[in-house]
Amino acid sequence: MQRRDFLRHGGLAGVLAAGAAPAFAQSQPEVKWRLTSSFPKSLDTLFGACDEVAKRVAAATDGKFQIRSFSAGEIVPGLQVLDAVQNGTVEMGHTISYYFFGKDPTFALDGAVPFGPSYRAQVAWMHQGNGLKLTRDFFKGYNVYNIPCGNTGTQMGGWFRKEIKTVADLKGLKFRIGGFAGQVLTKLGVVPQQIAGGDIYPALEKGTIDAAEWVGPYADEKLGFAKVAKFYYYPGWWEGGAQLSAYVSMKAWESLPKSYQAILEAACGDAHIDMMAKYDARNPQALKRLVSTGAQLRPFPKPVLEACYKAAQEVYAETYEKNPTFKKIHEDMLKFRDDSVLWFRVAERTYDDFMTSVKKS
Amino acid sequence: MQRRDFLRHGGLAGVLAAGAAPAFAQSQPEVKWRLTSSFPKSLDTLFGACDEVAKRVAAATDGKFQIRSFSAGEIVPGLQVLDAVQNGTVEMGHTISYYFFGKDPTFALDGAVPFGPSYRAQVAWMHQGNGLKLTRDFFKGYNVYNIPCGNTGTQMGGWFRKEIKTVADLKGLKFRIGGFAGQVLTKLGVVPQQIAGGDIYPALEKGTIDAAEWVGPYADEKLGFAKVAKFYYYPGWWEGGAQLSAYVSMKAWESLPKSYQAILEAACGDAHIDMMAKYDARNPQALKRLVSTGAQLRPFPKPVLEACYKAAQEVYAETYEKNPTFKKIHEDMLKFRDDSVLWFRVAERTYDDFMTSVKKS
Repeated sequence: MQRRDFLRHGGLAGVLAAGAAPAFAQSQPEVKWRLTSSFPKSLDTLFGACDEVAKRVAAATDGKFQIRSFSAGEIVPGLQVLDAVQNGTVEMGHTISYYFFGKDPTFALDGAVPFGPSYRAQVAWMHQGNGLKLTRDFFKGYNVYNIPCGNTGTQMGGWFRKEIKTVADLKGLKFRIGGFAGQVLTKLGVVPQQIAGGDIYPALEKGTIDAAEWVGPYADEKLGFAKVAKFYYYPGWWEGGAQLSAYVSMKAWESLPKSYQAILEAACGDAHIDMMAKYDARNPQALKRLVSTGAQLRPFPKPVLEACYKAAQEVYAETYEKNPTFKKIHEDMLKFRDDSVLWFRVAERTYDDFMTSVKKS
Repeated sequence: MQRRDFLRHGGLAGVLAAGAAPAFAQSQPEVKWRLTSSFPKSLDTLFGACDEVAKRVAAATDGKFQIRSFSAGEIVPGLQVLDAVQNGTVEMGHTISYYFFGKDPTFALDGAVPFGPSYRAQVAWMHQGNGLKLTRDFFKGYNVYNIPCGNTGTQMGGWFRKEIKTVADLKGLKFRIGGFAGQVLTKLGVVPQQIAGGDIYPALEKGTIDAAEWVGPYADEKLGFAKVAKFYYYPGWWEGGAQLSAYVSMKAWESLPKSYQAILEAACGDAHIDMMAKYDARNPQALKRLVSTGAQLRPFPKPVLEACYKAAQEVYAETYEKNPTFKKIHEDMLKFRDDSVLWFRVAERTYDDFMTSVKKS
């Protein structure tokens, strides 16, 4: 063997050896990520999802894959989670995608849209329909890999200082609500207000605004709205099954060993169950407390819901004209939703109806 | 340094080194388990959960933790999953816990009981109420570690050759149904029949039995019942949110490194979502096909449901007297269920009601 060959073969062996050792090291490398959340720590159910994911990932890797969670404002403000992940400021974020409606309404389809699917239909559309595929194609354009990670269920319609008895009562109403729902309500005369969580209470108290929507009993109770706007309306038709999402920077995602990718996806799935379970366990108690301290529960009158539905169709038609990606994904979602509505009215709904009728307390 | 010290330190170093290597090896050992399912491969949604778990576990461990799934009958019959896990014949099983109602009705609380919680309430009770703690305490007595792993949602009430118009129509009805629901229906004159899945069709065709319950549209369609018993009743009040469970032999569970335990739990959680999503995606289409080929959808008349509810309370009272563990866990579950029923009738249900009313197709 000539020296040149020897070197070449030695070089190859060296490469192979070098390849083998790192391959072994790579299978369980030390990885430290930062995760920025859109939520403050006080919203323990929403913010807590980060820690639920991080805890599972650390346990599954003997602490080798560490994700450190930061609440809204610690690294970037809550509404800049997308930017921070997209730019690589952090490896990961946790948010609700309709916050980025202003960049492109298509984001909202990964979170919630007015009169969209309820919880189970949203989950089924994502995992067994085309939801995950279609939204992932869209998120690729932002260098983000999205993973469903939590859901609030159908939210409440919010806190109102005065009753909403007719569609006309919406006219001129200063309502803290954003995104798609704000656009829909604008058609009915509502004046949508953008106000951060911590500023809602004083605005309602002073009457600077007439109403505000937040999440549901457990989260709303923390902000004390019942004291300043006692009419508590339902349902929040703009969030029939609002999904939270983990965002992973595509570069960070691709740098992970396959095993860590699998662990992260399973951890998000398990944390997803955890969040819905927390809301479902805590909302009933919170609702009881709210009602016992003066909150007045009110369903939106059917003509009001019908007017909102009609206005939503107008907003969708306008959005379709401007945004073919939104149209494509939304139409796919609606087809799935309609089939779900049909099925859920059979066994699930008659069972729930009956259980409601026999409840004794 | 004296030789003795040298040896001692060398010995210590040796121990440390020896300790370090196995610790490293132990953190990612090769583990091969067998899993026996209660279901045949043809029930792809139920049987498939095993493979969904195994796939996630293998991916998360670079193939080092392998779980091989066997369908009902390959190792033991479907109803012997508990025994097989308890005796260590296999490390793991996948089943629905009410199959073991005959050993102790307490098992059913880990699966489904008549007029029990619906899907979301069951999940929330398990994960955020006392469900997982209480059922795990119970399963310990069988050397089993139980992990929720799938749900069917509210099942259908089954296929009937004749219509059920009054409570009297139940008298003498030969109905393929087991466990708790069988006991409840016995009080109303039904004669419960125990028949394996594959034998139901001929029994219905010949009129040996008058009715049979199975799962829901997607699973039922495979067995072709519509041809021989066209009245398709709902809801299956004995399975409002029937939960599937993974059983792990306690010895096998304790032998796993903590990281594999975490991986297995997260994989079961993620597979749980997958199963519910599959049913929710497939049931609507299957129901449409069933109806288009002659199935006649019928809700159980309210007086029939009420009579069943009343009979169920009698069965529960009798069971409480004999079985304090059942009483303790069931009462905890009912408290949780009642709170859930209260909450779900607010936002979720009014949203679903409205979406049903506007659906156009």
